[in-house]
Amino acid sequence: MPPLPADERFVRQAVGLARHGFGTTSPNPVVGCVVVAADGTVVGQGWHERAGGPHAEVNALARAGERAAGGTAYVTLEPCNHRGRTGPCVDALLAAGIRRVVYAVADPGAVQGGGAGRLRAAGVEVVGGVLADEAERVNEAWLTSARRGRPHVLWKFAATLDGRSAAADGTSRWISSAASRAQVHDLRRRVDAIVAGSGTVLADDPHLTARSPEGVLDERQPLRVVLDRRGRVPATARILDDVAPTHVSTAATPADLLRELHSRGVVSVLLEGGPTLAGAFLAAGLVDRVVAYVAPALLGEGRAALGAAGVATIADAVRLDVDEVEVVGGDVRLCGRPVGRGGPG
Amino acid sequence: MPPLPADERFVRQAVGLARHGFGTTSPNPVVGCVVVAADGTVVGQGWHERAGGPHAEVNALARAGERAAGGTAYVTLEPCNHRGRTGPCVDALLAAGIRRVVYAVADPGAVQGGGAGRLRAAGVEVVGGVLADEAERVNEAWLTSARRGRPHVLWKFAATLDGRSAAADGTSRWISSAASRAQVHDLRRRVDAIVAGSGTVLADDPHLTARSPEGVLDERQPLRVVLDRRGRVPATARILDDVAPTHVSTAATPADLLRELHSRGVVSVLLEGGPTLAGAFLAAGLVDRVVAYVAPALLGEGRAALGAAGVATIADAVRLDVDEVEVVGGDVRLCGRPVGRGGPG
Repeated sequence: MPPLPADERFVRQAVGLARHGFGTTSPNPVVGCVVVAADGTVVGQGWHERAGGPHAEVNALARAGERAAGGTAYVTLEPCNHRGRTGPCVDALLAAGIRRVVYAVADPGAVQGGGAGRLRAAGVEVVGGVLADEAERVNEAWLTSARRGRPHVLWKFAATLDGRSAAADGTSRWISSAASRAQVHDLRRRVDAIVAGSGTVLADDPHLTARSPEGVLDERQPLRVVLDRRGRVPATARILDDVAPTHVSTAATPADLLRELHSRGVVSVLLEGGPTLAGAFLAAGLVDRVVAYVAPALLGEGRAALGAAGVATIADAVRLDVDEVEVVGGDVRLCGRPVGRGGPG
Repeated sequence: MPPLPADERFVRQAVGLARHGFGTTSPNPVVGCVVVAADGTVVGQGWHERAGGPHAEVNALARAGERAAGGTAYVTLEPCNHRGRTGPCVDALLAAGIRRVVYAVADPGAVQGGGAGRLRAAGVEVVGGVLADEAERVNEAWLTSARRGRPHVLWKFAATLDGRSAAADGTSRWISSAASRAQVHDLRRRVDAIVAGSGTVLADDPHLTARSPEGVLDERQPLRVVLDRRGRVPATARILDDVAPTHVSTAATPADLLRELHSRGVVSVLLEGGPTLAGAFLAAGLVDRVVAYVAPALLGEGRAALGAAGVATIADAVRLDVDEVEVVGGDVRLCGRPVGRGGPG
């Protein structure tokens, strides 16, 4: 059946609800659900709040109660048909008497698949793919993990207009604005792990924790990961303190590291660490998203933001498909996905 | 006398008129003039069209004719009181019976000074400084030249997000988008001279001419200047062809070079050339404006956009007072003035 005019509106509302789950649902996706009665009234809203807790559909149906019967459920992700820590959402939707289900993104998991099929078999009208791009964006990390069998990798860096991340004497505090630095803590909040190379740990001794602007540590902290093949990181490094878990890896390649983290249930990784490591990830095609903070400053010398990335000639430059350019506290934040290699438009 | 509510509006209109003169008035400033009759009707508009031609006031008064009598003249720059290639504008304003003159920027030249004073002495009401910042911007180059006794220097560069202006093998065509490159030709159109170092000439063999997107050369071309202290530029370099004048300088420092160009009547310089030369200009505090085209691409290796600029530590970074951030054909264009050295906000 084709989508109805109101479908996009309610799916968009569900996407907004899904966002409330950022940072607390991993290794599950963020999901939002809106239940609309036959007369067009919104009777229930919900989202997946935390791993192990009820799914978005169950929360929304609980709020709708009997008013769900004969109504439509709008969900950002195809309802699940498997019994995990909670019952399958398909059962809950059928039990509530839902007659129509509109979802944005198909469930990529083989285990979880089949929700739409079982609903259809039970006589429910099902429409998929509504506002799929928008809904893909909010679950970018989880979908990457499900489809590729490795964590989603976001590389964040801050540099001057001339591409330097530290001055000639090694000083780098601060290149970016206070507003940009606050945003980095938001990025850290949303990921399962933060990865740095031993070079960065030795040069900057970073803490790699999520903190408030006042310096107060978040209760939940992402896993800190340091790639240290040669055992160079000293026991006194701040990254090894006990305020957050830390994993020291001796993986030989970025792909090996991601395999290791995937097996530990890590869905999303924030790559914060150093020009060498970033270059290795880019060269291996293992960066899914770049967030660059470009400060309106010039250094002329000092550490480059990016090291060798396997690019020998201009035609092989790593181009970004940019979806965001914004001024943040005077810096320019630019976000995008690395795309195939070639010339500009 | 204080400004009137309508004054800003008419001065802004005059600033818009002044812009028509970009690229054809050097070594004179761009100037716009609006003549408003006593009843508030605009009766004449004009701008300074080319060096040697009539000034903005004379053009606007000619269009107003007898309707100027008893009216107000709005001018972006204090009217001149000297006899150059054309008569003093003050005489023309008095002869036309103008009763009130509102101008934006005071004339910085000692020779030209005194226009406002002579008007006042003749009983004309004079208000200065209205919308001065906006009017300063359109005459930034000319005012810099008049106040500092050296050409205004605009450094333009294109780089990847990681600050590279060429790939590891030296290729650089093209880092920036076609739209950005078209804008660079507009920049060239507006300046008296384009400066490059011998390193850039040897590496890229640039033509440094103003051309249309189709490659057709402009009729008027800026002076091409190559700093070549060691006589390294070969006679076959494209910069030495005969489609535009070229000056080969052996100046020892950027300050010497600017002195040399000032004495040749050069008011504005576009610095296009190379990380070493740009670094030397920045280190000497001789860059008045930076226009950066940042392409959403990564190279990891290759020529840095900026070389040593005398910055040893982060606190000494050259910070820019940014007044423009815009997306141009996918690139981010960022413009600003280098300001004192210190940390961000």
